[in-house]
Amino acid sequence: MLLNCDLGESFGAWTMGLDHKAMAEIDCANIACGFHGGDPDVIAATLQLAKKHNVMIGAHPSYPDKQGFGRRSMQMQPLELINCLHYQIAALEGMAKVQQLTLNYVKPHGALYNDMMRDNAILNVVLEAVSTYPSDLKLMMLATAKQNEHRKLAEEYGVALLFEAFADRLYTDEGLLSPRSEANAVHDTPALLAQVTQLINQHSVQTSSGNELPLMADTLCVHGDNEASISLVKEIRGLLNKAASSSSMA
Amino acid sequence: MLLNCDLGESFGAWTMGLDHKAMAEIDCANIACGFHGGDPDVIAATLQLAKKHNVMIGAHPSYPDKQGFGRRSMQMQPLELINCLHYQIAALEGMAKVQQLTLNYVKPHGALYNDMMRDNAILNVVLEAVSTYPSDLKLMMLATAKQNEHRKLAEEYGVALLFEAFADRLYTDEGLLSPRSEANAVHDTPALLAQVTQLINQHSVQTSSGNELPLMADTLCVHGDNEASISLVKEIRGLLNKAASSSSMA
Amino acid sequence: MLLNCDLGESFGAWTMGLDHKAMAEIDCANIACGFHGGDPDVIAATLQLAKKHNVMIGAHPSYPDKQGFGRRSMQMQPLELINCLHYQIAALEGMAKVQQLTLNYVKPHGALYNDMMRDNAILNVVLEAVSTYPSDLKLMMLATAKQNEHRKLAEEYGVALLFEAFADRLYTDEGLLSPRSEANAVHDTPALLAQVTQLINQHSVQTSSGNELPLMADTLCVHGDNEASISLVKEIRGLLNKAASSSSMA
Amino acid sequence: MLLNCDLGESFGAWTMGLDHKAMAEIDCANIACGFHGGDPDVIAATLQLAKKHNVMIGAHPSYPDKQGFGRRSMQMQPLELINCLHYQIAALEGMAKVQQLTLNYVKPHGALYNDMMRDNAILNVVLEAVSTYPSDLKLMMLATAKQNEHRKLAEEYGVALLFEAFADRLYTDEGLLSPRSEANAVHDTPALLAQVTQLINQHSVQTSSGNELPLMADTLCVHGDNEASISLVKEIRGLLNKAASSSSMA
Repeated sequence: MLLNCDLGESFGAWTMGLDHKAMAEIDCANIACGFHGGDPDVIAATLQLAKKHNVMIGAHPSYPDKQGFGRRSMQMQPLELINCLHYQIAALEGMAKVQQLTLNYVKPHGALYNDMMRDNAILNVVLEAVSTYPSDLKLMMLATAKQNEHRKLAEEYGVALLFEAFADRLYTDEGLLSPRSEANAVHDTPALLAQVTQLINQHSVQTSSGNELPLMADTLCVHGDNEASISLVKEIRGLLNKAASSSSMA
Repeated sequence: MLLNCDLGESFGAWTMGLDHKAMAEIDCANIACGFHGGDPDVIAATLQLAKKHNVMIGAHPSYPDKQGFGRRSMQMQPLELINCLHYQIAALEGMAKVQQLTLNYVKPHGALYNDMMRDNAILNVVLEAVSTYPSDLKLMMLATAKQNEHRKLAEEYGVALLFEAFADRLYTDEGLLSPRSEANAVHDTPALLAQVTQLINQHSVQTSSGNELPLMADTLCVHGDNEASISLVKEIRGLLNKAASSSSMA
Repeated sequence: MLLNCDLGESFGAWTMGLDHKAMAEIDCANIACGFHGGDPDVIAATLQLAKKHNVMIGAHPSYPDKQGFGRRSMQMQPLELINCLHYQIAALEGMAKVQQLTLNYVKPHGALYNDMMRDNAILNVVLEAVSTYPSDLKLMMLATAKQNEHRKLAEEYGVALLFEAFADRLYTDEGLLSPRSEANAVHDTPALLAQVTQLINQHSVQTSSGNELPLMADTLCVHGDNEASISLVKEIRGLLNKAASSSSMA
Repeated sequence: MLLNCDLGESFGAWTMGLDHKAMAEIDCANIACGFHGGDPDVIAATLQLAKKHNVMIGAHPSYPDKQGFGRRSMQMQPLELINCLHYQIAALEGMAKVQQLTLNYVKPHGALYNDMMRDNAILNVVLEAVSTYPSDLKLMMLATAKQNEHRKLAEEYGVALLFEAFADRLYTDEGLLSPRSEANAVHDTPALLAQVTQLINQHSVQTSSGNELPLMADTLCVHGDNEASISLVKEIRGLLNKAASSSSMA
């Protein structure tokens, strides 16, 4: 299971996240494209860091809303959203090309990510955008109870999916993330590590109602906000390595 | 001599220029990249129009200043400017690729264009940006008395140049455009057509001091602002066709 | 019945509307505050024009979305929306003060206007914003079948209302505007003038289902987009003058 | 001597500076107006903090350049700059009024501050903007060798000045700040405290060439970037208190 992380979300004079430390620990960098975070300088620096650590790169496009950090839903027409995504993907891909890097996938950010998981019409628009962009790009999305349905839909668009799971978030029975407004929505460290272990070993999570929900995750979303997050990423990496080593011994 | 025109400078709900009419008359479209004009929707529509009329496309990047329409000089560090240009070129190139179009050249816009023509340090930064972008892109710039010097400099960067002349603007002895603030800086129609004829036949212009300045122009910059501009473009096209036909008869 | 019109929606190099002509015909100018249209220069020029024609001025604030011209709903938290409105009202009021003008009312723009009319929670937030702004400002909103309910609600906030009606739009039985996507949603000239006459004489409109809906409008929203709109405003002004003159004769 | 500090420079999801701690130590808060830093939410929160600590407030307007944090010079026309300043001052003043606070002064930010100190034409435009804004606002500017000249010029505009000195920066003989690019441009703590002591006791600074330059400072600019800056502010406050107490004993 690969580790992915949102990076390149600094902007101008404002720094966000410990990108230098996070990049050293992860496999896939979701790089902001300048619409919610990032700017041409931040993008160039983040790509350089990804190159140094040989990390796979993805575009992390957003609704156009820097003040809201892409966290506010916006009612965009399908074609508007497609063009908005193409622009961001293109900007990131071209700047990656400058550093001899190849863009690998697209992971929508914030409200757009949530809207896509909640509303099939928006998911279709996102798939249309990814499939009409003329590079071989995967779409990274949440692994939920509808994984098979989502995989079939993506196949119609000729788009491969990367399913991600969250280490630190409580799941609903549908495999969605419990809203942060709810109690226990964000795990403490022991619960987080237990969830990772269960994802590795049983390919499932325990939901808020106590059920076991099967989830096949290609990648795990981790965070690089601060020193505590970086420590957690290292602990998660340790669990993955141990699992890999015991499976290779078996 | 090719006709080039700045297009795609509408933004959101605001329309600028008669792009549909201009695109039908020109050879090269300088397409705004969203930093002074244009947005993802405008870019997509402009590229579609270029495709329909089989027009060569160039990126028309700018200082990041939508309110000022890229007409206000900004003091950017060299690396800032390079990243800023890469981002814009990349966005346009990727969106062109979506429509199976190939980006051909870069023409800086407004204050950046003037700064580059006035200040060799900035020209060097622009050349660095174009040369490090990993597609085969030419740089479009003003044909002046320093054409040979500019060609040599561009060769050091491995960048081919497209020299442009202006039909409607009075030239200084240095081959720069007389500032719009000066009397007679913008030609009336007879003077404009005379300047085009001289550019075609004698490869020169008459400067503000009455001298004849040799200028080898690959392309002529025309405008599509309104019906009057479109009529002028058609007249200029007529002159070019006549010249081409008499030269082919010769 | 006063005539109100959205003005000051040009931006930077982009012109929108025939503000000079419209301002000469109207009573109340809804002036964009720079979040969907307008910028400091446009605001200053629009205020100057309002002053010249002795027109009452209102702030016309919007969701922060220039590319979308404030026409796309955005999910903002109540406090975010209040601060966003205060900022825009303050900017316009202060710039009006520079020209010895007094701000009179607030009319939300585009998607925010529609959201406020559709969702009472958002209307409450708008009322909260207007009532906590320490100038005596009215709120301009649509006169619908819920006029009395709205007046009572506004009274709780200590905010006076200006109810507006539309000349050119077909009404639903609820007194909302039929969506532009529907056939006949926008009146032709005879239907428009008939609707104005009915609003003046019977204080009602005929709805899409043929019912007569009572509407007490303080003001009529007119448009200054182009020459045709300006002509219509003059015709509407003529109807109002005739009504005023016959009522004064009675 | 009052302590002033740039505050309210966070933006959206990005935090800058320890505003909560700095506000508790200072006398005057220079509050960003949303053009280089700040947004309506940040402004409201910063004003609330100023109110809590009973701190005098000033508008801290900037060139319109969020990515560049107002640190890049922009060539604006005089009227453009005046409108740009009026808009920002108005937005801040109105939002202050919401919290029953009165705006006291204007301190231009970043490149605009430097341009105003370097170029008398720009200083005149800034003075024109402050004097035509219809509230009683002072202008905060650098105390240099030209203090008297500046005071006379400001009097022509009817604008009172607040002269500020810097604790941490090396001065040139002209009383300008040595560019950060030069060695020793930023003082270490002992040099900083010595400079403050000299400003208090001798009303002068020692310049880079070793001369003593008389400077009458009304206020001292301090920083709240991080814990180290906050500690310094407390030390400076201690020096000021000691000076005040010995002068009151005398």
